Amino acid sequence: MVRWEPGATDRLREAALDLYVEQGYDDTTVAQIAERAGVTARTFFRHFADKREVLFRGSEFLADGMVAGVRDAPDGAAPLDAIGLALESAAATLGVDHAYAKRRMSVIYANPELMERELIKMARLGDALAEALQARGVGPTEARLAAEAGIAVFRTGFDRWVAGPRGDDLAQVLADSMERLRALS
Amino acid sequence: MVRWEPGATDRLREAALDLYVEQGYDDTTVAQIAERAGVTARTFFRHFADKREVLFRGSEFLADGMVAGVRDAPDGAAPLDAIGLALESAAATLGVDHAYAKRRMSVIYANPELMERELIKMARLGDALAEALQARGVGPTEARLAAEAGIAVFRTGFDRWVAGPRGDDLAQVLADSMERLRALS
Repeated sequence: MVRWEPGATDRLREAALDLYVEQGYDDTTVAQIAERAGVTARTFFRHFADKREVLFRGSEFLADGMVAGVRDAPDGAAPLDAIGLALESAAATLGVDHAYAKRRMSVIYANPELMERELIKMARLGDALAEALQARGVGPTEARLAAEAGIAVFRTGFDRWVAGPRGDDLAQVLADSMERLRALS
Repeated sequence: MVRWEPGATDRLREAALDLYVEQGYDDTTVAQIAERAGVTARTFFRHFADKREVLFRGSEFLADGMVAGVRDAPDGAAPLDAIGLALESAAATLGVDHAYAKRRMSVIYANPELMERELIKMARLGDALAEALQARGVGPTEARLAAEAGIAVFRTGFDRWVAGPRGDDLAQVLADSMERLRALS
């Protein structure tokens, strides 16, 4: 019988992030993470497939929410307006824990392998958004351009939010980045 | 003394691409490529570091040309206009051999590892373009948004050109994609 430890997922995530920041991602082992969290390595593997998944768990929720934002946009909404709703959904998912986001991104930017993983995640997100726009009747070229412009706004805005002070509202920073992109055109 | 075979680089590239298309990238060895090109494996390694480099050699020229396009844009050119000049430079570099581009992209899209490499190449290109825009006095947020929008236009337009008939002009397809992005905003 597998015993379920309440809160172990959060404890493991906190312990992992602490260690990644303190001593680097590459030099951190699953055994160290488990020890810091006060559980066994076996328990770690009941919660995460490996030490990388600690940083990327939840990507599907983000993508699903953003795709739903596009899908549920009002009839006749312009492609970039639908993308704007996807960004609002992203802000609702990611905007709650500034300290966590800041530490997570510092670990990812310090490690080329993790940065690649993050890029792939963003590329998949772009594909999913383009597909959702096409399902609304947007042509394939416009759908891809709008989706990738949305990813550009998302990445630029998210990094600005992470670099900024704790009280900033992610939804607002993303909306401002979208406005700046529109103003460029 | 190293003997230099005239045209060996081109022969090796053609042989490699033929084999990647025929039997898949993963199942192709350097020995097979060299044999098909009529040279030794040692000669292959005088021209390319490994079988992946056959597909990615020249990325620096593309990036250098695009960065120069931004740098040499007229004083006061808007960020997206400077990016448009970078796209013209890219078209001059890449637009000459449609058959090669088509086969290269089919190999890359069929292989996740190569696709990752291509994504990383595009991310670096975006960073270089953003830096070049900042050197022109564009603010960091606008520079990044314009650069990443430029990458979105480049990828979308390039894929459209590759999928289209042989006679199409890459510069025109890229300019059309840029117009469509502007029209979205």
